[in-house]
Amino acid sequence: MRLAINGFGNIGQAFAELLQRKQAELALPLQVVAIVTRSRGRIYNPAGLALEQLLRDGQLPAETWDLADLLRDGSIDVLIEATPTDLQTGGSALETFRVALRAGVHVVTVNKGPLAVAYQELMELAHAHHAKLLFEGTVMAGTPSIRLAQSALNGNQILGARGILNGTTNYILTQMETGMAYADALAQAQALGYAEPDPSGDVDGWDAAAKVLILSNMLYNNPLTLPDLSVTGISAITLADVQQAQRDGKRWKLIAEITPDGGSVAPVLLAADDPLASVGGATNAITYQTELLGDVTLIGAGAGRIETAFAILADVLSLIKPE
Amino acid sequence: MRLAINGFGNIGQAFAELLQRKQAELALPLQVVAIVTRSRGRIYNPAGLALEQLLRDGQLPAETWDLADLLRDGSIDVLIEATPTDLQTGGSALETFRVALRAGVHVVTVNKGPLAVAYQELMELAHAHHAKLLFEGTVMAGTPSIRLAQSALNGNQILGARGILNGTTNYILTQMETGMAYADALAQAQALGYAEPDPSGDVDGWDAAAKVLILSNMLYNNPLTLPDLSVTGISAITLADVQQAQRDGKRWKLIAEITPDGGSVAPVLLAADDPLASVGGATNAITYQTELLGDVTLIGAGAGRIETAFAILADVLSLIKPE
Repeated sequence: MRLAINGFGNIGQAFAELLQRKQAELALPLQVVAIVTRSRGRIYNPAGLALEQLLRDGQLPAETWDLADLLRDGSIDVLIEATPTDLQTGGSALETFRVALRAGVHVVTVNKGPLAVAYQELMELAHAHHAKLLFEGTVMAGTPSIRLAQSALNGNQILGARGILNGTTNYILTQMETGMAYADALAQAQALGYAEPDPSGDVDGWDAAAKVLILSNMLYNNPLTLPDLSVTGISAITLADVQQAQRDGKRWKLIAEITPDGGSVAPVLLAADDPLASVGGATNAITYQTELLGDVTLIGAGAGRIETAFAILADVLSLIKPE
Repeated sequence: MRLAINGFGNIGQAFAELLQRKQAELALPLQVVAIVTRSRGRIYNPAGLALEQLLRDGQLPAETWDLADLLRDGSIDVLIEATPTDLQTGGSALETFRVALRAGVHVVTVNKGPLAVAYQELMELAHAHHAKLLFEGTVMAGTPSIRLAQSALNGNQILGARGILNGTTNYILTQMETGMAYADALAQAQALGYAEPDPSGDVDGWDAAAKVLILSNMLYNNPLTLPDLSVTGISAITLADVQQAQRDGKRWKLIAEITPDGGSVAPVLLAADDPLASVGGATNAITYQTELLGDVTLIGAGAGRIETAFAILADVLSLIKPE
């Protein structure tokens, strides 16, 4: 299987590193033949790339081919999409997905943008052209929240879901429980690299909302877009609110909720015995309400270089050996 | 696919009910052709059984064929094993498994006995005869603890596991946190049908230990048997112990632990921020420590008629459409 990696920042590089390690361990029939960056060059070699050297150098050559041409002419079997998310338009990745899927090229994405904007259209394209569009890494990084719903719970209807799907806001709320003010907790999250310099995507709930869109489309074929959701972030939660909750034995959490009819993101006061209440720091969790098992909760990493790279690997492995 | 159900008590009947429902919903290419009970008769019809009527009547005919003959002569594709667990010898199910696997018949079991006694031998038999031996229902009922490890975390090494794998003891410990004495909590668990009239299998840790054996064999090919494990139950935990833990912000839990080298069952005092600490009542949970994701925790039902029947269904579905 010939892979192209679009985006060679933190996650793209982490995947290349992980792939090298796992290729030795698992003898995978995989080869990275192309890497594309926006401003640091691109490289293509149909015989496979020397990943170790590329990772060491950081800089790629200034080749001038077009990724769309490679996707169209049968040079690529799997497109790995690790460019930054654009929730408003889907970004340039959206058109790249269309080109790939029309050409029957599988797409594995950690970029939420194209799915948040055009999930149904892209899944129909994939289906029509016998390609897979896989996206484990868009929700809870490599913690298998998507696989749990799509494969492990197969045969058991999912009646709804709610989760803590943004690590930055959960980290901030957890720090506030130690007595830190909102602004200080946010500054600490930024210093640790959890929050962006412009934190609004996290603290205003948009990152979690994108995951609600993906899950709503996946679980219920519900073609929601951002304007369909009620989205409230955590910026109005004060230290006094957090401390009052503690006195009541409760915890504020930014909860993403998915029902067959819609979705929302909002701060919710959870009782201590809610499985989501004990989820602290940058950890994420999701509870699926199911027909036959009641609540099934999965707790794990929600972000991270290697954790997200594993999501890509898991999706690629499922292309080699279908689940 | 022609199924035989061995054991038609609570779980066997729940599976038959669930299968009827899901056959309509999912159009499954399945047919139950044989049901065997120990003392309430047996019935075989190669054209398929009328499950609805059998479920209504409760009693089966007194036919005199031998299940081993049906398994050997190619009349059965999948054996569903829902007889009671015998951890000491594996019970008669052990020999039935050998017969089935040697004949290339897939086995789906909720009976832990044969796996606790002879996991490696049975897996080798299955492999040699191109049959599957599936056992989701032996650990956490249908909550997909086995699928999570074997399929969803594929490519990500599991470094160890620990869990709350017995619902009865967790129910008792949770009730004691409301001020109830051990004996009263046990009596209540018995009244609710969680604990057997002889509760020692649960409260002395043997049920959890059987699950440790299964997971140790599955994760590490470690051919442990019961005498290899250190097993301590909850009967020495007093109300005073539980209340002291509460004052310290902690909780006593009966923890099953699996490492690459061995396993154990023992009461452990958990800090409040441990994902297992918030697991109350008859709910179960498992935390896999992983190479690439850190801790991944799954929380859900650990017992129940329909919850266990779903485990069987999930295994059968995976035989129809391999994961």
